[in-house]
Amino acid sequence: MSPHATRVGKDKILDVAEGLFTERDYKSVSIRDIAQACGVTNAALYYHFENKEMLFAEVLENHAQQLSDHMRQAAVGVEDRREQLIAILSRYASLAGHRRSPLFLLRHKAAGLDKQKAVRQHERLFQAILLPIEEVLVGAVDDGELQPLPAGYSAASLLLGMLHGMTQHRRMCHQESIQPEDVEVVVDVFWGGLQR
Amino acid sequence: MSPHATRVGKDKILDVAEGLFTERDYKSVSIRDIAQACGVTNAALYYHFENKEMLFAEVLENHAQQLSDHMRQAAVGVEDRREQLIAILSRYASLAGHRRSPLFLLRHKAAGLDKQKAVRQHERLFQAILLPIEEVLVGAVDDGELQPLPAGYSAASLLLGMLHGMTQHRRMCHQESIQPEDVEVVVDVFWGGLQR
Repeated sequence: MSPHATRVGKDKILDVAEGLFTERDYKSVSIRDIAQACGVTNAALYYHFENKEMLFAEVLENHAQQLSDHMRQAAVGVEDRREQLIAILSRYASLAGHRRSPLFLLRHKAAGLDKQKAVRQHERLFQAILLPIEEVLVGAVDDGELQPLPAGYSAASLLLGMLHGMTQHRRMCHQESIQPEDVEVVVDVFWGGLQR
Repeated sequence: MSPHATRVGKDKILDVAEGLFTERDYKSVSIRDIAQACGVTNAALYYHFENKEMLFAEVLENHAQQLSDHMRQAAVGVEDRREQLIAILSRYASLAGHRRSPLFLLRHKAAGLDKQKAVRQHERLFQAILLPIEEVLVGAVDDGELQPLPAGYSAASLLLGMLHGMTQHRRMCHQESIQPEDVEVVVDVFWGGLQR
């Protein structure tokens, strides 16, 4: 094992790799590129990660967690659950609207992976987006503010889908991206539809 | 001009071209391939279509119109507007669920086009799907059953988005595709949210 193996931390590697995977795509970034950018040998990387695929998966997993956290933070200090949803979805819309955002670039950069794995990464990000929404909705149902959907349905996926539908329509009409007042329209329809 | 020019109709060419574009992708189908499959010369095709791109656009336009028609037909004879929406969206879900459906294959096959044009084709299909939904919703607002969204918003895109959100969630959970009872859950939330 390289003498560098213990001198370069996993977080540092993930950080550097994230930068490279965001700039270029999965296929065109090699373990050697990442090692060179970290100033270490390939062996130092293999000490932490079995292969490039595992490394990429960890970069994406970090991003998924960051995405959930960013969305949750938007609702901190907001009392009303309807307002919490608006804050969380507005934050999401603003992150998703940045076409240069690493969070969304990485999703596309996964295209170099084999299809099944790219689908799994995509699903992981979708899950990360749904989670903070689902948390608020579960609370609203528990407190009797909203009625639950029948078992097996995800209310968060319906709400997020509405927002995506609006985004797609905006894009089709070549209009601006989603603003907080647009999110409010979506949350109002959804909240009204499930209100007790 | 080839003597065949007048002997092969535009509809026949579109029909043959549709088959080829559905089997293979945009790039790998040439004007020559289409002409040969029709049993005519290239000139006979150029008599009707300026180039391959224009031909493909017409194939897709035909499909967009068929899609709207198929969706509308599902609501024929249904009195209640809520039930009409369920019928129309169930028909859409069943068409969209067929991964071998030419309607959806063609959308992906457009990938060989330059990006801007592929986006326009995608938008045209999205519009074709929204239209029959929008028609029912406009009627419901006119008759005072539903309240309108503020100006500039498309209620149909929110409703369709919800359905897509549910589909995406199903896929993530590796569950079956959308059934009419699932469409009913979506329409209920939406209808409840806009009901007067």
